[in-house]
Amino acid sequence: MPELRKDPVVGRWVIISTERGRRPTDFQREPVRARGDNCVFCPGNEDRTPPEIIAGRPSNSPPNTPGWTYRVVANKFPALRIEGELEPTGEGLFDRMNGVGAHEVVIETPDHQGSLATMSTEAIAEVLLAFRDRMVDLKKDPRFEYVLVFKNHGEAAGASLEHPHSQLIATPILPIMVTEELEGSLKYWELKERCVWCDIIRQERRSRQRVILESGGFVALAPFAPRFPFETWILPTHHSAAFEESDVDELRGLAALLGEFMRRLSDTLNAPPFNFMLHTAPLRTEDLDYFHWHLEVIPKLANVAGFEWGSGFFINPMPPESAAGALRGERDDAG
Amino acid sequence: MPELRKDPVVGRWVIISTERGRRPTDFQREPVRARGDNCVFCPGNEDRTPPEIIAGRPSNSPPNTPGWTYRVVANKFPALRIEGELEPTGEGLFDRMNGVGAHEVVIETPDHQGSLATMSTEAIAEVLLAFRDRMVDLKKDPRFEYVLVFKNHGEAAGASLEHPHSQLIATPILPIMVTEELEGSLKYWELKERCVWCDIIRQERRSRQRVILESGGFVALAPFAPRFPFETWILPTHHSAAFEESDVDELRGLAALLGEFMRRLSDTLNAPPFNFMLHTAPLRTEDLDYFHWHLEVIPKLANVAGFEWGSGFFINPMPPESAAGALRGERDDAG
Repeated sequence: MPELRKDPVVGRWVIISTERGRRPTDFQREPVRARGDNCVFCPGNEDRTPPEIIAGRPSNSPPNTPGWTYRVVANKFPALRIEGELEPTGEGLFDRMNGVGAHEVVIETPDHQGSLATMSTEAIAEVLLAFRDRMVDLKKDPRFEYVLVFKNHGEAAGASLEHPHSQLIATPILPIMVTEELEGSLKYWELKERCVWCDIIRQERRSRQRVILESGGFVALAPFAPRFPFETWILPTHHSAAFEESDVDELRGLAALLGEFMRRLSDTLNAPPFNFMLHTAPLRTEDLDYFHWHLEVIPKLANVAGFEWGSGFFINPMPPESAAGALRGERDDAG
Repeated sequence: MPELRKDPVVGRWVIISTERGRRPTDFQREPVRARGDNCVFCPGNEDRTPPEIIAGRPSNSPPNTPGWTYRVVANKFPALRIEGELEPTGEGLFDRMNGVGAHEVVIETPDHQGSLATMSTEAIAEVLLAFRDRMVDLKKDPRFEYVLVFKNHGEAAGASLEHPHSQLIATPILPIMVTEELEGSLKYWELKERCVWCDIIRQERRSRQRVILESGGFVALAPFAPRFPFETWILPTHHSAAFEESDVDELRGLAALLGEFMRRLSDTLNAPPFNFMLHTAPLRTEDLDYFHWHLEVIPKLANVAGFEWGSGFFINPMPPESAAGALRGERDDAG
């Protein structure tokens, strides 16, 4: 029997349709493999990107030359432009604003064939620290309300370049998904005076069914009402609203768990294309009691039909309990 | 310069990124072409679908035999099941409900190679009347709150069968997109005592920039803040909240406009895969002054990146004014 489930934060219902038994292999598609010819992000081609903003280098290594471990550069084809003041204007009942923002690329490793599933914990931690440092810097610009940190991995997930990279976009307005999470979690707070994500973590730790792994102050879990097969949330187990307030030790803990999760995802689904997106507090808030930062990871396993786009109503053929079991390495004998 | 635009109904901001000039041909992908071997929806194979619920047939033609113009049958692999009472249950802080609902398929034409771009107005009107009649019937079931009517055309848009068809899903809860539109349009009503879509139509008719075509009591327009290239809304020009209250003449008017729009879309983008989704009032409301039913059409032209999924923030490289111009048949000399 299919089942309807409600996301406890934003109130979105999903259909978990278990009509046909599904094994992880049913969701596999072409694995993401890098070919790597003539790549603008590879060492030696530093002059083919905009100049680096920050990079991981030995102290004697000049900027924009080989020898780096990661680089952050401006996006050559930015969705938003850094120049200009914000100018909100109207057009009758419509509102518009000039597209002021920042759009940066984090080249995560010099190794074209690398990935979060193969990089060392230390190398992943460097990337996470680069996210943090860029957010702290972009926060100083009063025009920005939010920094979106995300990754598209594999062509099917929207990556136009295959060299491992992630992106930051600083925006003058809040993304609607963040607004919805803020509203939903504030409502929960007003009712219970507890953070909804803290409560979710507490409940998931007790039941264990949807916990994938936990270590170093972080937990990876399959959410109760996932939109997509193998959707995963990674959260700090202690309450924290803003990613950019994380210290080095915390980000090392996250790096270790993220690497391990990525290896399991890659093993279970054969190096799938995926996206991740950091959900963190808006830049202009402080110490939110009701918001809890988290990383959402979504493997791109199937075309999403128009039904989902048009309705906001997702049909997910993979129960999160089975997905978590597969990622924990358990054999699925249900199908 | 890119531009940020806000949807006046749900408040969603999108980035219209005009960084690189784009022509409609830049968005073309593999055209949807039917091969049509061994199709369960084709005439002669009526016994391979569940029995028909309604169909267009001459009076002497027995059910579930050839000779039909359209057929409505239960979905063989339903996302929701028709049997059982609603049983909402809790699991700690989570809410779930058994998956009660109806899931039907409208086989739009006996012609496997047909499409909304090639069917006659009368044949399209029959399909629209079938939507209406099934909605009116499903409305009698007190378990249902909403009927989602939608179409996935082409594999890239999520269609698993190529024979022209659309689907209805009756659900015991409201899709979140509808809830958001209801909330947004109620807010507008409280401020202005006018329907926001009526105001949009009024303004678009004055400026004409985003109007694609208008006839028979309906208008097709490119919305001000579209999420996707060539996203189109089709609305009745007179206020009407519930699709299922449309009369035969109105649906003939819609059929004529929809057919013409589909021909233009097909010509402009080379028979693209697409989705449409009917946004109509919830079943248990009457005469909503602030809600205006409409059909959203979304060509499936590119992979949507994780950024969009994760943030609700869409980057659209095609300004709606240019999309409307192309669909009006104007040459784009901007790129």
